[in-house]
Amino acid sequence: MKTTLPSQNQPSAVPSDRPVRLGIIGGGQLARMLALAARPLGCDVIVLERTPDCPAAQICPGSMVGDWNDPAILLAFGRRCDVLTLENEFVDARALAVVEAAGHPLFPSAATLALTQDKLVQKQTLQDAGLAVAPFRAVQTPEEVIAAGTSFGWPLLLKTRRNGYDGKGNVTLRGAEDVPVGWQQLGGDGNELYVEAFCHFKSELAVIVTRGRAGETAAYPVVETVQRNHVCHAVQAPAELPAAVMASAADLARRAVAAVGAIGSFGVELFWEPAGGLVINELAPRVHNSGHYTIEACECSQFENHIRAVLGWPLGRPRLITPAAVMLNLLGAAAAPGQPRGLAAALGVPGAHIHLYGKAESAPGRKMGHITALGATWPEAMHIAMAAAREIEFAKVT
Amino acid sequence: MKTTLPSQNQPSAVPSDRPVRLGIIGGGQLARMLALAARPLGCDVIVLERTPDCPAAQICPGSMVGDWNDPAILLAFGRRCDVLTLENEFVDARALAVVEAAGHPLFPSAATLALTQDKLVQKQTLQDAGLAVAPFRAVQTPEEVIAAGTSFGWPLLLKTRRNGYDGKGNVTLRGAEDVPVGWQQLGGDGNELYVEAFCHFKSELAVIVTRGRAGETAAYPVVETVQRNHVCHAVQAPAELPAAVMASAADLARRAVAAVGAIGSFGVELFWEPAGGLVINELAPRVHNSGHYTIEACECSQFENHIRAVLGWPLGRPRLITPAAVMLNLLGAAAAPGQPRGLAAALGVPGAHIHLYGKAESAPGRKMGHITALGATWPEAMHIAMAAAREIEFAKVT
Repeated sequence: MKTTLPSQNQPSAVPSDRPVRLGIIGGGQLARMLALAARPLGCDVIVLERTPDCPAAQICPGSMVGDWNDPAILLAFGRRCDVLTLENEFVDARALAVVEAAGHPLFPSAATLALTQDKLVQKQTLQDAGLAVAPFRAVQTPEEVIAAGTSFGWPLLLKTRRNGYDGKGNVTLRGAEDVPVGWQQLGGDGNELYVEAFCHFKSELAVIVTRGRAGETAAYPVVETVQRNHVCHAVQAPAELPAAVMASAADLARRAVAAVGAIGSFGVELFWEPAGGLVINELAPRVHNSGHYTIEACECSQFENHIRAVLGWPLGRPRLITPAAVMLNLLGAAAAPGQPRGLAAALGVPGAHIHLYGKAESAPGRKMGHITALGATWPEAMHIAMAAAREIEFAKVT
Repeated sequence: MKTTLPSQNQPSAVPSDRPVRLGIIGGGQLARMLALAARPLGCDVIVLERTPDCPAAQICPGSMVGDWNDPAILLAFGRRCDVLTLENEFVDARALAVVEAAGHPLFPSAATLALTQDKLVQKQTLQDAGLAVAPFRAVQTPEEVIAAGTSFGWPLLLKTRRNGYDGKGNVTLRGAEDVPVGWQQLGGDGNELYVEAFCHFKSELAVIVTRGRAGETAAYPVVETVQRNHVCHAVQAPAELPAAVMASAADLARRAVAAVGAIGSFGVELFWEPAGGLVINELAPRVHNSGHYTIEACECSQFENHIRAVLGWPLGRPRLITPAAVMLNLLGAAAAPGQPRGLAAALGVPGAHIHLYGKAESAPGRKMGHITALGATWPEAMHIAMAAAREIEFAKVT
């Protein structure tokens, strides 16, 4: 497998003394929080999304409705913007390359997207850069999956190379007998799959790194993430780990984003293994759920720093302004309206910062909002966030 | 002069389990910052302003263009919103009363606006509530101004009863010889004027108080404001004053907003006199320039708390999350584009939080943005804010 390092020929920084319009491809909650951070910098924002009333378009007049995998639509969008960026990793890198070739500045670049959106290419790129990842291998047939299980051991993770997120596109195989069902579940005859050794870990960590146009980086605190059903449930900032582990995690994360030529805020997920080692789980080429706490808890949020980076402006400091912070996701529990019950009660919990994403409908497991709380200790912050989260329910009004 | 206490018959709180749309009358930077604070609470916002591309409409799709002193337009706006609020005190209270009578919830109420937008009525209301204000008196003729000067002493302040702000509508008279020019300058034959004894002060203070529907209040820290040419130049939070003075200032501010039946965030300006006493200078029935520092420096900003109050939801805590903060206004120096020079350089100053208002044009003295910095001490915060402010210039690009 051949990996291509992204070009170092970066367009020059966007002049800050003229009105700037940023175009975000994708209009979900990440684009919404990016837009909220961009406005105070005097930056106009429009988004491109398939549906008109998406979370970000609600605050970005003049946004465009269309399919962001269609190069013609991307080009039309690009013509209306000074700089383009993305809020998800699913936009086809080949479509993005067309937009870039037409002269529209895009950060992160199509080359970076190509190195990250195919998870197999991403793993290979990280491994080639000398960074620790779990053993992995491309698989063409169920027989190759079984062979990999024999080699790596069971359980084994079977994954789609593209479009997986929050556990979607992943199957855990306990043994050879699980392979046929897993292969069918991920559509192995039509989709490109790969396998990965199952990683036993003591904790899951994440680091947001913002990387600027000149390669300078701002690494946010190492946080511990708690997943439920493969979805981020809670984030504790900072993680409580030996200083050497924290430093190694931050260093790995910086090297990982450099390996893909990142520009902007990226999320790096890591496993801390029982033996004390760190491996990179995966890289998200965008602002990340594990960094939402930075809005209240850090001097410059992951969102503002992403804006600064993609415009070629100086990065802000990622340091915590509080001893501890906790973020809890608010997930939909049922098909119900997007406005939850209990919001006013949750606002009655002192210290809870509530963020709703303005989605019209909730669905089981759908990310509808989040709550951040600061504290002198993380149990204190957790106590506040939990008390508020307990009040909120996405359910049918009866 | 008769003052009317606002009705205590408040419409019930807005249910938080349905989508909520807030309408803001006025679309300047205060409405913009209110809208930025309302979105994370899941609250949709539209504004009513005379021009289409005002600072707030840029982030509020579906906003209305029209004259907010026209009751018919206000009614049309009200029909599109669940709750109405204001970003300035100039909307005619009689027009607002029409909207209220038609059943549109409005906070602060038309009665509160009537008690505050006429500065003479405001002074009388505060005095009737037993609160310290400088001696004042209505004047019908230049001769009455001279008589007041003889009684109160010179210098004497001559002021318009309505529509004054940032020193507009105010003249300082050094003696009887200044009266004819001052009278003419403020259009005394056509405008209602009053006079006020000149207050010698050691420092100017301000307190933001948010008052909820049930009369509960959140008083922000007492801050010291530094004015230049009658315009707020810098805010230091908290003020450095004896604890008893701080407590008295907060108490006065709470009583002042209660005296006008305030609902929402209000700015209260005070003078600290050489003898150590405090007098109320004036009350602004809206979020206030002296409270912009609360975005970064307080647990819940004046903007978020205003939203909470007008919707009838629980108030957030106003406490500082930093030992000290400084806010500097960014004022226009010339007729020039609204995008300043030097933004990127200012972003290079670590710790400076930059807020631009998105105004198309700058003008001498026009509020174009502000910078907030936090610090362990206020000189540290001031140093950061000054370093960033020094980079920014609203001037013609040559």
